[in-house]
Amino acid sequence: MSNKSPTDNYTMLVDFYELTMGNGYFASGMEGRIAYFDMFFRNVPDGGGFAIAAGLEQVAEYIENLRFGEEDIDFLRGKGMFSEDFLAYLRSFRFTGDIWAVPEGTPVFPGQPLLTVRAPTIEAQFIETYILLQLNHQSLVATKANRIVRAADGRAVSEFGSRRAQGASGAILGARASYIGGCASSACAVAEQLYGVPAVGTMAHSWVQMFDSEPQAFDTYCSIYPSNPTLLVDTYNVLKSGVPNAIAAFKKHGIQRGAVRLDSGDITYLSKKVRTMLDGAGLEEIRIIASNSLDEYIIREVLNQGAKIDAFGVGERLITCKSDPVFGGVYKLAAIEDDTGNIIPKIKISEAPGKITTPHFKRVYRLYNRDSGMAEADLLCVHDETIDDTRPLEIFDPQYTWKRKTLTNFTARELLVPIFQGGKRVYPKLATAEIRKYCLEQVDTLWDEMKRFKNPHGYYVDLSQKLWDVKNEMLRG
Amino acid sequence: MSNKSPTDNYTMLVDFYELTMGNGYFASGMEGRIAYFDMFFRNVPDGGGFAIAAGLEQVAEYIENLRFGEEDIDFLRGKGMFSEDFLAYLRSFRFTGDIWAVPEGTPVFPGQPLLTVRAPTIEAQFIETYILLQLNHQSLVATKANRIVRAADGRAVSEFGSRRAQGASGAILGARASYIGGCASSACAVAEQLYGVPAVGTMAHSWVQMFDSEPQAFDTYCSIYPSNPTLLVDTYNVLKSGVPNAIAAFKKHGIQRGAVRLDSGDITYLSKKVRTMLDGAGLEEIRIIASNSLDEYIIREVLNQGAKIDAFGVGERLITCKSDPVFGGVYKLAAIEDDTGNIIPKIKISEAPGKITTPHFKRVYRLYNRDSGMAEADLLCVHDETIDDTRPLEIFDPQYTWKRKTLTNFTARELLVPIFQGGKRVYPKLATAEIRKYCLEQVDTLWDEMKRFKNPHGYYVDLSQKLWDVKNEMLRG
Repeated sequence: MSNKSPTDNYTMLVDFYELTMGNGYFASGMEGRIAYFDMFFRNVPDGGGFAIAAGLEQVAEYIENLRFGEEDIDFLRGKGMFSEDFLAYLRSFRFTGDIWAVPEGTPVFPGQPLLTVRAPTIEAQFIETYILLQLNHQSLVATKANRIVRAADGRAVSEFGSRRAQGASGAILGARASYIGGCASSACAVAEQLYGVPAVGTMAHSWVQMFDSEPQAFDTYCSIYPSNPTLLVDTYNVLKSGVPNAIAAFKKHGIQRGAVRLDSGDITYLSKKVRTMLDGAGLEEIRIIASNSLDEYIIREVLNQGAKIDAFGVGERLITCKSDPVFGGVYKLAAIEDDTGNIIPKIKISEAPGKITTPHFKRVYRLYNRDSGMAEADLLCVHDETIDDTRPLEIFDPQYTWKRKTLTNFTARELLVPIFQGGKRVYPKLATAEIRKYCLEQVDTLWDEMKRFKNPHGYYVDLSQKLWDVKNEMLRG
Repeated sequence: MSNKSPTDNYTMLVDFYELTMGNGYFASGMEGRIAYFDMFFRNVPDGGGFAIAAGLEQVAEYIENLRFGEEDIDFLRGKGMFSEDFLAYLRSFRFTGDIWAVPEGTPVFPGQPLLTVRAPTIEAQFIETYILLQLNHQSLVATKANRIVRAADGRAVSEFGSRRAQGASGAILGARASYIGGCASSACAVAEQLYGVPAVGTMAHSWVQMFDSEPQAFDTYCSIYPSNPTLLVDTYNVLKSGVPNAIAAFKKHGIQRGAVRLDSGDITYLSKKVRTMLDGAGLEEIRIIASNSLDEYIIREVLNQGAKIDAFGVGERLITCKSDPVFGGVYKLAAIEDDTGNIIPKIKISEAPGKITTPHFKRVYRLYNRDSGMAEADLLCVHDETIDDTRPLEIFDPQYTWKRKTLTNFTARELLVPIFQGGKRVYPKLATAEIRKYCLEQVDTLWDEMKRFKNPHGYYVDLSQKLWDVKNEMLRG
């Protein structure tokens, strides 16, 4: 074990086979052959209608910082399987290729590239692990957060899950992704410092227990934080002690704006009782916050039952995406270039039709209705095609090709934008709040039928005639 | 947003309420009051019979590095809710207390402390978030890994999940925890560099696709890596091309020790066919490795069906603990000291009996049968009690107190060992391989009945008479 810090850069956070393959390409003189890889996913988590792309900023930072230190070279030499030529090559290893990707916060669909890499084979292959890790993790959490925020129907949702996160970056970047997906805030202090996610938090049960009595605990808190305090009212008994003591403290300190938090018990029943007690005391502005094992299903259900809750704190079921904790993004070879720069499409064929890839270097267009602004379909094209949105466009289902539709009144927007060109980052770093705003605007371009939690209406992700022909010809061999 | 690196130290990876409470304790002159907190969990993930404690080393490193930088102080000042006195205090904030914990790799049970903190209130409270995050994450993964390893019944299990992990530390420390729980290796290169987890890996489908033909891909690989190569045989067709081409490559290069990997299709059916083909070619030493959406249930089932698999690669279902991705450890106040140093037990009462805490500063003993070496029961005691294992000991069920048992021929081992004393680390850093060895030895002290994946036999976690009396008296008010 070296003294390397776990937090240097992430160059060595790589599946070992990327290195054995890299050494192999190098030994075979194939390291410079240009390859195209697509990152895409096959299923939306939780059976939802769409996912939210996130994690691109961290991928870009990783690519910019990509370099092997001497300790890494020494470590690899110690494995006894890499040539000295290869190790010397790694010393000056940098990413020199091109990357296109869907901006963070974009709603995305199965089968379409979220990111495309064009680079010398060895580079394009090497970055697979980290690209997948980041895009899978943050897209997973952003997607889940967006579901929960939609369930809360306008009420604020705060991310509370650091203590149950799968590791430090699970907590920190999970808070970032939750915010992108629509959460209003997080309990994670460093997520505000690093990513501008508003950090919030007031008291734990231990605060209340630390004092001789609950009134003393609340009184002390309100005297220190008279501006908008939240009192946790379930340490002993919500209705018999917590809320009466909170009301007394609010009154004593003249607090009109504040909140009580329920962290146990039946929040539908309790919130109704608590609302009545607060209103009866003339504290109509005091809000009720609920936490404790919430997710989109429970939030929707308690709201349907008339729970009087103004905001939600969501912990473990958001930060780990408990009901479906894997975003199954993959990274597949789409094409290579021959010596003269011709692009040769590549396909991965499988017994399972859902696992067959769409070959070639591609563009992705999203087609919006010009009047409503709503998204109508996405269209995957060969890289040298352009969509003319001033003329009618016939699209068709790539599986049931007789299902056809002609779009007339639409605008076409290209989803994959340049991130790196010739190894240089060309895409700016955006404020997380800006990404969040874009995400919520884009989700508004999707029909409600696609937003159902289960069995949503499918969105069209079609292939251009030219791309369909390429794929079909390769499938027929 | 500051320019702070996400990878400095983890002091600011904290739920914001730890800071508001800290400021509150400080303002109330309570920051120096000594408090005792226990970290424990209530349910074993996946309904299993025991969990594996892990993550302590990272907690210890965190405690040692605990300090606020000027950028942190500035950030907190900007929140406009902390006093300058408190911010000045944070500048020299260090952990000065004591910590006891169960060594990593120990099988542990619900309701018993995995870690106990004795420290000034503000310090003890502050470290809650990170302690929970680390112990929850790594105990979750170590527990899952141990289940999978037990299902594999002596066959090697390799952790393959980095690309689907929930963040970078989810991948890296997940690999560490998997190894502690019994995995033989990981695909994650940096996990070997940092934690000595053997890193392994050979080729992806893209390697095979990158060549003009599968034979050429295999031939090239075997010529570069003649020592124990693993060939991925399912890029085109396992039985018609992959295995025949692998056999040809092994034969051509005179390779007797190596493997083929199956990453799709029915691995029971395919592995039997592949075994026959390999044996028929005189390649009895070539092993068969299977990957693709495996977990303990699928591994047990394919082995029951006679699958001819020698080793498993387990990805997303291990690294995210997909079937139950949350380890619900909590951190609860157990006692405080009054001005004269008397320890005053504290209890958290709940309507739900399972959520009532066990009060007081405690010791935990594990009682092993002197002849068999098997673990018989754990006993929670008040801190000033000692167990004399030369005399008979009557233990009883804390809920059904008439269920009693007298142990005679036993040795008592204290589970909580000192980690920090007066802010100084006193517990050594152990090699991960040593922790793994200890873990597997300790799992061997548990009866098979406790190792069932579902409905395992319950283990006794009892209270001493003295502790039971303290708790019962507090419950009766």
